[in-house]
Amino acid sequence: MASFETDHHTCVSFPTPRSFQTTFKSDLKETLFPDDPFKQFKQENSLRSLKKAVQYFVPIFEWLPNYNFRMFRFDLLAGITITSLAIPQGISYAKLANIPPIIGLYSSFVPPLIYAIFGDSKHLAVGTVAACSLLLGQTIGDVVSAEENPTLYLHLIFTATFITGIFQTALGFLRLGIFVEFLSHSTITGFMGGTATLICLQQLKGMFGLKHFTTKTDVVHVIHAIVINRREWKWESAVVGVIFLVFLQFTRYIRQKRPKLFWVSAIAPMVVVVVGCVFAYLIRGKDYGIQTEGIAIGRSFAIMKNEQVDGNKEMIAFGLMNIIGSFTSCYLTTGPFSKTAVNYNAGAKTAMSNIVMAVCMALTLLLLAPLFSYTPLVALSAIIMSAMFGLINYEEAFHLFKVDKFDFIVCMAAFFGVAFISMDVGLMLSVGLSLLRALIYVARPAICKLGRIPNSILYRDTDQYPHAIQEPGILILKLGSPIYFASSNYIRERVLRWIREEQELSGSKGDVVEHILFDLSGVSTIDMTGIETLVEVRRTLEARGIKVAIVNPRLKVMEKLIASHVIDKIGKENVYLSIEDAIESSHKSLLSNDFADHCDAA
Amino acid sequence: MASFETDHHTCVSFPTPRSFQTTFKSDLKETLFPDDPFKQFKQENSLRSLKKAVQYFVPIFEWLPNYNFRMFRFDLLAGITITSLAIPQGISYAKLANIPPIIGLYSSFVPPLIYAIFGDSKHLAVGTVAACSLLLGQTIGDVVSAEENPTLYLHLIFTATFITGIFQTALGFLRLGIFVEFLSHSTITGFMGGTATLICLQQLKGMFGLKHFTTKTDVVHVIHAIVINRREWKWESAVVGVIFLVFLQFTRYIRQKRPKLFWVSAIAPMVVVVVGCVFAYLIRGKDYGIQTEGIAIGRSFAIMKNEQVDGNKEMIAFGLMNIIGSFTSCYLTTGPFSKTAVNYNAGAKTAMSNIVMAVCMALTLLLLAPLFSYTPLVALSAIIMSAMFGLINYEEAFHLFKVDKFDFIVCMAAFFGVAFISMDVGLMLSVGLSLLRALIYVARPAICKLGRIPNSILYRDTDQYPHAIQEPGILILKLGSPIYFASSNYIRERVLRWIREEQELSGSKGDVVEHILFDLSGVSTIDMTGIETLVEVRRTLEARGIKVAIVNPRLKVMEKLIASHVIDKIGKENVYLSIEDAIESSHKSLLSNDFADHCDAA
Repeated sequence: MASFETDHHTCVSFPTPRSFQTTFKSDLKETLFPDDPFKQFKQENSLRSLKKAVQYFVPIFEWLPNYNFRMFRFDLLAGITITSLAIPQGISYAKLANIPPIIGLYSSFVPPLIYAIFGDSKHLAVGTVAACSLLLGQTIGDVVSAEENPTLYLHLIFTATFITGIFQTALGFLRLGIFVEFLSHSTITGFMGGTATLICLQQLKGMFGLKHFTTKTDVVHVIHAIVINRREWKWESAVVGVIFLVFLQFTRYIRQKRPKLFWVSAIAPMVVVVVGCVFAYLIRGKDYGIQTEGIAIGRSFAIMKNEQVDGNKEMIAFGLMNIIGSFTSCYLTTGPFSKTAVNYNAGAKTAMSNIVMAVCMALTLLLLAPLFSYTPLVALSAIIMSAMFGLINYEEAFHLFKVDKFDFIVCMAAFFGVAFISMDVGLMLSVGLSLLRALIYVARPAICKLGRIPNSILYRDTDQYPHAIQEPGILILKLGSPIYFASSNYIRERVLRWIREEQELSGSKGDVVEHILFDLSGVSTIDMTGIETLVEVRRTLEARGIKVAIVNPRLKVMEKLIASHVIDKIGKENVYLSIEDAIESSHKSLLSNDFADHCDAA
Repeated sequence: MASFETDHHTCVSFPTPRSFQTTFKSDLKETLFPDDPFKQFKQENSLRSLKKAVQYFVPIFEWLPNYNFRMFRFDLLAGITITSLAIPQGISYAKLANIPPIIGLYSSFVPPLIYAIFGDSKHLAVGTVAACSLLLGQTIGDVVSAEENPTLYLHLIFTATFITGIFQTALGFLRLGIFVEFLSHSTITGFMGGTATLICLQQLKGMFGLKHFTTKTDVVHVIHAIVINRREWKWESAVVGVIFLVFLQFTRYIRQKRPKLFWVSAIAPMVVVVVGCVFAYLIRGKDYGIQTEGIAIGRSFAIMKNEQVDGNKEMIAFGLMNIIGSFTSCYLTTGPFSKTAVNYNAGAKTAMSNIVMAVCMALTLLLLAPLFSYTPLVALSAIIMSAMFGLINYEEAFHLFKVDKFDFIVCMAAFFGVAFISMDVGLMLSVGLSLLRALIYVARPAICKLGRIPNSILYRDTDQYPHAIQEPGILILKLGSPIYFASSNYIRERVLRWIREEQELSGSKGDVVEHILFDLSGVSTIDMTGIETLVEVRRTLEARGIKVAIVNPRLKVMEKLIASHVIDKIGKENVYLSIEDAIESSHKSLLSNDFADHCDAA
């Protein structure tokens, strides 16, 4: 590699391209291991390496040896708090999936223990989620009816849980968490909003005390079912439901106003359950019907701040939770954001809080479970509706509309798709639009014209800085990244059009474009078609008497230019490190038609 | 919008974001109308506008009024030359599609006339193509057998042609030619090579004079059929075939060595047909079996140099050719590159050459057609094989391997997919890999560390220029484009990892990273998730006592930062126009902890 200075003309580096192994290893690492997780294993002592490896794969060996009683006090309190949330959520969400409520309670016993062993996060709390329960119930319900064949239905739920666990573990091992990154915040906002809306509408069955309803889960059918069965509406049920709902919303309001009182809204669902049970026992006798909900959006953990959480490792932990859970009467679990937030606020220090919750749940199952059979459906419906209200993030949607309209459409696609068609269609539609945006970007990378900011040697976009001065006879275009197959035609047509426009403008003034500088400082990568396009464009321009120069090609681009010998076609003397250098040379060329001094490159 | 100078510190522009209509119109134009085709209509005189519009949509009205006899001489010669190619190609390729050879001749009568009226290119020659003929035959042959039900089969071929025409016209009208741009050169090279290989192997049936063969079109089945039926091999046929083949390849060799003798290789197929007919007539009596081929890669026209051809308009012309052609006994036609090249070399000046070819073909059909029924199958097989050899571009594949390994894999995926599975699977596989590459790019935009080139104020990639100097205490990272949902996690983890690595490096020296500058000059666009990621990263870094500054945000990025109020969270005083300015401020801050003078922005 040769680069040295002559005068004040700084030299471009024309390196021998790195070997394929080097670039491939580097690219693979950037794509799949951006956080370099195995760095810590490179210890001098092989025994220490082994210890580090074990601690990496089974995190409990990392935090448990350093555990003390002071931590335990915090974890104990947090564990009890999230148990009070786990009981009503467990029995509520299980009914969303049309399975016996006790399964919902079991699911807060074994999976938290698994997470405590294999999980990375200090604050994550394990439990079931509404959207997954709904989706599971919907999917299995399409093939087997929960009423007619409850045993088969339940077994299929467990099988689905098991297979989900296999997928999660595989994705985590293969570092394919990259696929999850294609879910944008907009998609999640719309998906959650749509799911929450759907679930709220379904809870109206419990609120109104309806016996007949629909198995379909889109807005139109649900509203129709409510209206059609209006003669079955029980006003008493609705009144009680509204009272519970108002109470729950009020405790949330308290939490927003005084964050220290978060525990009030945390135990509120438990209070509702207890009050409901007592009320029902005193008033009516037995009333069954218990439903559960949860959102297994696997990225919730990523929102935890200031924690370096390995997404792929978490996915393995969740996968193991579901695999082992499916053998122990637990259905789909993950780390719901709401429960995790409660856990965090309650002061949890380690994953021990999950172990505490598991123990409390075991005690509940042994001693208290029969009592919960008195919980009236209306109480659970109120709990679910209150939880779902918080997920309909209309503020975020409005913010999206103001800032980025395409993202708003992505969000709305998920919302309406989920609400009016089905959950999987809504998700696919939204993700599809996101991917389309990414592809359109690759097909149309922005090109802008540069001008010099007065009294400086800075060159900036003339659209952004209209007072920037253009050099007469020289057109400077900053090409966008990447220069791939999809953008080749566009680049060619756009550059030629720019020349035409400049010729028209300058035609009146008398200046003709004689030089064109392509600023490649923003182009991080190029493929074969892109290189051929550059060659074509250059040939077309040179045929019109316009000289072409390249400014600041980046590392990968330079390597490909050299490997394809295109750098020789362009001419190393036409490659510059800065726009200033290129313009200086162009001026000399415009004045005297001699080539500027150039650097010798070995 | 306010920007002015204080001292030597140039000011960043914080504009009022442009209205949604403005940006949407601008983006739509860039995406669908990059060549601004309707500019020419904006004339002052509305009658002139109308005239221009008519000339735009029906190009014959543009070149015909200026036509003269001198041009006609060239077009006449070119037209006759391409007719001599159209006849053997027409009858050969029709058999590839398992339809009567006369259809192949018809297809060089009506479609060229349509193209002459609606087409844009001066040199394009219309005809049938091998790959499309094969694909058509394969697709229709899957549902209807050409032997058992020839009438229905033929009608389905015409219907497929019609529908193709509808699609092409629609795509052209809706300016959706952008979809075609997702076919990279690598995909086309592999696809053509695989198709050519397949067709060559199939021609061995004709070469060896086999009666029994296979209807399948993958390499394994074809080779198996040849070997299994080896007792049917006729050595006489093979010898004649090889002689023809050698002759044809020799004429191509002549063309390569002496380009002026291109016409030799152009009329060679006609010679082979005539010789074959005479030979067959003298030796054997009637021998039928005629096959045709052509490549309907709709991008061939785009390779014509120095021509401003509107891809979407061409697609409309091709669509009309196929729609009208399907009603006049013509099957799928387009502008094959080989024939176009011959037309160009023969000196064609306008699309009149296509009209000449149509007239010549009409004369041929009226006077000479019966003679061609004597053409032996082996002659046509030799013609096809010779044409196909030229399409197996192993040099390009090798060049790809050297320059861009991913592109090489894309090429090989098309080649092996077409050869061993089927044409559509091969194409989809290859395009799928190309799209995957585009998505991986969006998910992993390159970030590099910048350092100052000694004796200058240029900041460049330290990997590319290892002698670049790093400022102590300041880390400068150049972010890649775009900052979308898919790359958010990556950017966050990668930035944090960079900080860790810098801390480790500097830990020994005593310098700690106190400032981080994000150079956004390469980032042309950002979405909501990206903005939220920037906010998150900044919050994480500030929590560690690292000050964050942004350098040179581009127009769209700045607009979104302002619309989302994130610019206020970051602080306008932390946004700089150049790295130099940012470092100056950081130095003042490092020295005195005061904020640098900043520009007042209204």
